[in-house]
Amino acid sequence: MPTYSAVDVVTAKRDCRELTGEQIDWVVGAYTRGEVAEEQMAALAMAILLNGMDGRETARWTQAMIDSGERLELGDVGRPLVDKHSTGGVGDKITLPLAPLVAACGAAVPQLSGRGLGHTGGTLDKLESIPGWRASLSVEEITAQLASIGAVICATTPALAPADRKLYALRDVTGTVESVPLIASSIMSKKIAEGTGGLVLDVKVGTGAFMKTRARAGELADAMTAIGAAHGLPTTALLTDMSRPLGRAVGNALEVAESVEVLRGGGPADVVELTVALAREMLALAGITGVDPARVLAAGEAYPVWEAMIAAQGGDPSAALPVARHVETVVAERDGVFTGADALAVGTAAWRLGAGRARKEDAVQAAAGVRLLVEPGDPVKPGTPLAELHTDTPDRIPSARAALEGAALLITNDPGDRVARTLVLDTLRPA
Amino acid sequence: MPTYSAVDVVTAKRDCRELTGEQIDWVVGAYTRGEVAEEQMAALAMAILLNGMDGRETARWTQAMIDSGERLELGDVGRPLVDKHSTGGVGDKITLPLAPLVAACGAAVPQLSGRGLGHTGGTLDKLESIPGWRASLSVEEITAQLASIGAVICATTPALAPADRKLYALRDVTGTVESVPLIASSIMSKKIAEGTGGLVLDVKVGTGAFMKTRARAGELADAMTAIGAAHGLPTTALLTDMSRPLGRAVGNALEVAESVEVLRGGGPADVVELTVALAREMLALAGITGVDPARVLAAGEAYPVWEAMIAAQGGDPSAALPVARHVETVVAERDGVFTGADALAVGTAAWRLGAGRARKEDAVQAAAGVRLLVEPGDPVKPGTPLAELHTDTPDRIPSARAALEGAALLITNDPGDRVARTLVLDTLRPA
Repeated sequence: MPTYSAVDVVTAKRDCRELTGEQIDWVVGAYTRGEVAEEQMAALAMAILLNGMDGRETARWTQAMIDSGERLELGDVGRPLVDKHSTGGVGDKITLPLAPLVAACGAAVPQLSGRGLGHTGGTLDKLESIPGWRASLSVEEITAQLASIGAVICATTPALAPADRKLYALRDVTGTVESVPLIASSIMSKKIAEGTGGLVLDVKVGTGAFMKTRARAGELADAMTAIGAAHGLPTTALLTDMSRPLGRAVGNALEVAESVEVLRGGGPADVVELTVALAREMLALAGITGVDPARVLAAGEAYPVWEAMIAAQGGDPSAALPVARHVETVVAERDGVFTGADALAVGTAAWRLGAGRARKEDAVQAAAGVRLLVEPGDPVKPGTPLAELHTDTPDRIPSARAALEGAALLITNDPGDRVARTLVLDTLRPA
Repeated sequence: MPTYSAVDVVTAKRDCRELTGEQIDWVVGAYTRGEVAEEQMAALAMAILLNGMDGRETARWTQAMIDSGERLELGDVGRPLVDKHSTGGVGDKITLPLAPLVAACGAAVPQLSGRGLGHTGGTLDKLESIPGWRASLSVEEITAQLASIGAVICATTPALAPADRKLYALRDVTGTVESVPLIASSIMSKKIAEGTGGLVLDVKVGTGAFMKTRARAGELADAMTAIGAAHGLPTTALLTDMSRPLGRAVGNALEVAESVEVLRGGGPADVVELTVALAREMLALAGITGVDPARVLAAGEAYPVWEAMIAAQGGDPSAALPVARHVETVVAERDGVFTGADALAVGTAAWRLGAGRARKEDAVQAAAGVRLLVEPGDPVKPGTPLAELHTDTPDRIPSARAALEGAALLITNDPGDRVARTLVLDTLRPA
């Protein structure tokens, strides 16, 4: 491979020129090997954030990130592989019922996940609230579990796209996270390296999402589906609402409990709706027809898959989940109609209660979080309980309460159509 | 001083917000102390390059760089202090005759200089071709020499604006050199910390200059004079032509020899013209009237000051200068009129012959360089010598010749007005 000057690559992007494929291959590889310095990649990341990368550059960047490590070599699991990725939202526990549901319908879901940072929770953190459950599996364990059960949710392996891990840590401290091509290539490089046969993206929009506007979310969805197309990975993207939390539970064990309700055929309507919508797209990409995931979920037929999946990874699906040592209630201060909770505010409150981490090294509290007690449209009066705050460390409660002040738990006299919610805003399917 | 988050400062500039004075003070100080990481400053530098800083931010940034170190405490030298800075050009030896000339006219010139990098030479490199001359002086030596002789050309001290030294080294490897506010604050912070009472800037425009267009050079001149005004330093800026080399000699010892010609009342007309133009502006800022620098220079009255200045720093002004071991001639290949040499091409040729350095650690050859043998307007025919190539390492000659091919040494049948040159394009004086 030819050698380039890091400064030449940086100045090319700085001056709004397209990077060549060779420049991209070189700079990503050399950065991973430590031959391009952190400060040079930081300058390049900022230039990319401000000047952009086109579809060709982004696809090549993704390929270079994949090539920085190994691909996951899953053996034949006897079913079509299909995966899902969410850009992260408040109360977004959808992966928990979804993976068993899609497996119950006949596909195999190799869900390799990361941990949460900031106000959105991580799937692994949620499952780790189940006594005994372990996140790390070998490639052989993943393959065996996919063949026998059809669903795995586990930690991503260090050999997968190491460039992404190094680059993400750098972007996190240099103000360069918010770049659509860099976000898109980060997500897609891991999913492509994981070896899935189809991918459904849940791109969140709203206060609780990384992308606050539909335009920005659409841009990210377009960038990711374009990468999928360029790499021959059939990719469908749903734009879904994240102005309110998903379901009523936000926090690790609280969300596991709510997911189990859904898997048993109950649970909040919005969680059920989004789980089924995503399952339909995944089954379509897997080429599985004639199975209605709504019926399977409502009948509780995904629950045994959940039990098997948790047990296979050392967890006890029937064990009691951790319970917070302190629970306090937030009550209404006025008459009116509850019109919904703000996702960012509830996510921030749960995070402050101990459900999330501020730094990668931090531990999370399994039992901490927020449970909403009312549904949009419910009439309330002064003293009506609106939400429970769960934590093991009660000194965190005042700051969590502060996050929920103002319009975070909105009560109005005339809600109009504000109670209504369109969950799936748009669906982009492969051509 | 309050503490800020580096990421918050980076994202503010990334998102086109003005930085507050406190943010600037903090980030420059914390970076100098090593509390803001190199990769964070690299991202900030790229955001500044692409999104700019306004006059208030740039003046504050300059102040923070000054405050990162010490100011030079020159004692009373009995004369008004006035200095000059050039943004760097090919054959730009003007400081050598200028400092003694302005001293001969009654002012004191504390010229603290750096070394050259790339195709433009450094003043210290030029003077170090004089046997015995040393660049490093103590503050006491500088003060004494200014009082007794009126002119000092020496290396900048490490205590002056250490933030600038650290930031410049970072910008050099991260493609963030070409930012007008960062260039302007880098130059001005050192000149203000040096304690001069007036400053004349020679902002070069053209192929051989850092700023290729008059618009960019004007932008830099405006930024620097605005910083001068904000810091109470009377500052005049001249925009001068750098499409051709200054004089006929390019290279360290070759330029010293040409400077001595000028100091003795001879030398190329363009070097004399620019030396006098800059001297007039420096004397005006120093409040010295009734002395005509053109007359002083032509009469050779600056030469004794030069001798004293060189001798005071250990140099022997009468010693023979180093001579290159190999000299080859470039000849004309056709009939016509010589219409001028391209500054970048000649600078590159001299650099390739060994006159400049590619990296800070490199040594330079004292005797290497290019000497032009014809003047614009001279008729030439095949075989007429156009230039001499001087080097101690003859294997460098082919690449130097290559730099001078094509239109670098232009010969035409119909030169029209291309022979004419306006040296001083514009003068911006303090209000």
